[in-house]
Amino acid sequence: MTEKSPKRLPGRPKHGNDDISIQQTIIQTASQLFMEYGYETVTLQQIGKTCSVSKPTIYYHFTSKPELFKVAFKTMLHNVSRLTSHILDQAEDLESGLVRLAEARLGNPHAEIETMLREAEPFLEPAQIQDIRNAEHQIHEVLASHFQRAMDENRLRTDDPFFLAETFSTLMLMGNREDNLHKYGSNLSLGQKLVDIFIRGAQ
Amino acid sequence: MTEKSPKRLPGRPKHGNDDISIQQTIIQTASQLFMEYGYETVTLQQIGKTCSVSKPTIYYHFTSKPELFKVAFKTMLHNVSRLTSHILDQAEDLESGLVRLAEARLGNPHAEIETMLREAEPFLEPAQIQDIRNAEHQIHEVLASHFQRAMDENRLRTDDPFFLAETFSTLMLMGNREDNLHKYGSNLSLGQKLVDIFIRGAQ
Repeated sequence: MTEKSPKRLPGRPKHGNDDISIQQTIIQTASQLFMEYGYETVTLQQIGKTCSVSKPTIYYHFTSKPELFKVAFKTMLHNVSRLTSHILDQAEDLESGLVRLAEARLGNPHAEIETMLREAEPFLEPAQIQDIRNAEHQIHEVLASHFQRAMDENRLRTDDPFFLAETFSTLMLMGNREDNLHKYGSNLSLGQKLVDIFIRGAQ
Repeated sequence: MTEKSPKRLPGRPKHGNDDISIQQTIIQTASQLFMEYGYETVTLQQIGKTCSVSKPTIYYHFTSKPELFKVAFKTMLHNVSRLTSHILDQAEDLESGLVRLAEARLGNPHAEIETMLREAEPFLEPAQIQDIRNAEHQIHEVLASHFQRAMDENRLRTDDPFFLAETFSTLMLMGNREDNLHKYGSNLSLGQKLVDIFIRGAQ
């Protein structure tokens, strides 16, 4: 791997494939470390060390730690949006789709967004915070569109579909709790129990 | 206020009233700052400055930052337990009690415990983490005992009352979200919507 200038120079060549995969590696590592240890504890040095990328290379791809945090958080939320779309579009019905989605999200829970953001907020620009919030909103848009369809078809009672989306996402924070496998056997069975409460509650 | 030795000396006099109130002030301030900014960002100096108490005085009352974090977190969770008991014991029925409890908890949400603990964990002793988890468990014991009674009286369908307690507590994390007052009008109306889903779901 060639070391590159830490500053983004005007006119530098577009990312090649290697660059893209290094960038993805940095994002993925940063995302895992930030979610695990919070914003402030994690250093760029630690991120670099974990994925064997030098600090100048990180600075070549990302202008600052807040910027990397924003990109990592947004990427994670986009992945959740895509997963949500994919699973709900493929599912036979809303309930079985939500169970599959719950199983996936409980197995790979992200840190609670508000607690993470509150900690990182002093270091972020308002536009960076807004970018993260928009990425979260996309998840709720996907969920809300499926809830709205179920309401139109009288399978759920009429309610604010975004309220249901936020409620469902909040329930997924159960995946952050310790000891779930011991208590509930599997993410699938915990997901079934949560979706059962949610669907009965929303009907 | 007299400055005292920063070390806990053997045979030092029991806390007087002033000491107790200083201790309470430190705990309350620490609790607010830790919940707002996370474990690592907050320093003992900042806690002292915020409540006009010197750092040696903090060390007189608490042996270390992890210990103060533990006591502050436990105290906050004990307050939630007491509030839960008080409100549910006084309420006419489970649903109206849960609505009042939700209104209170949504209006004064605590940071998500798992995200906070994950960040603080490298600095805490296992016994300190266990103490915090036990304090959280007490909240769930209070809730579970009320859910169990409602199941015995056939007002809720039979389920694991601790699962319902954890689910209800997780729903209260909606209080951490931004913009709730704008979206839902008041904590009371958001509480009613959440309890409505929860009770229908658990019936």
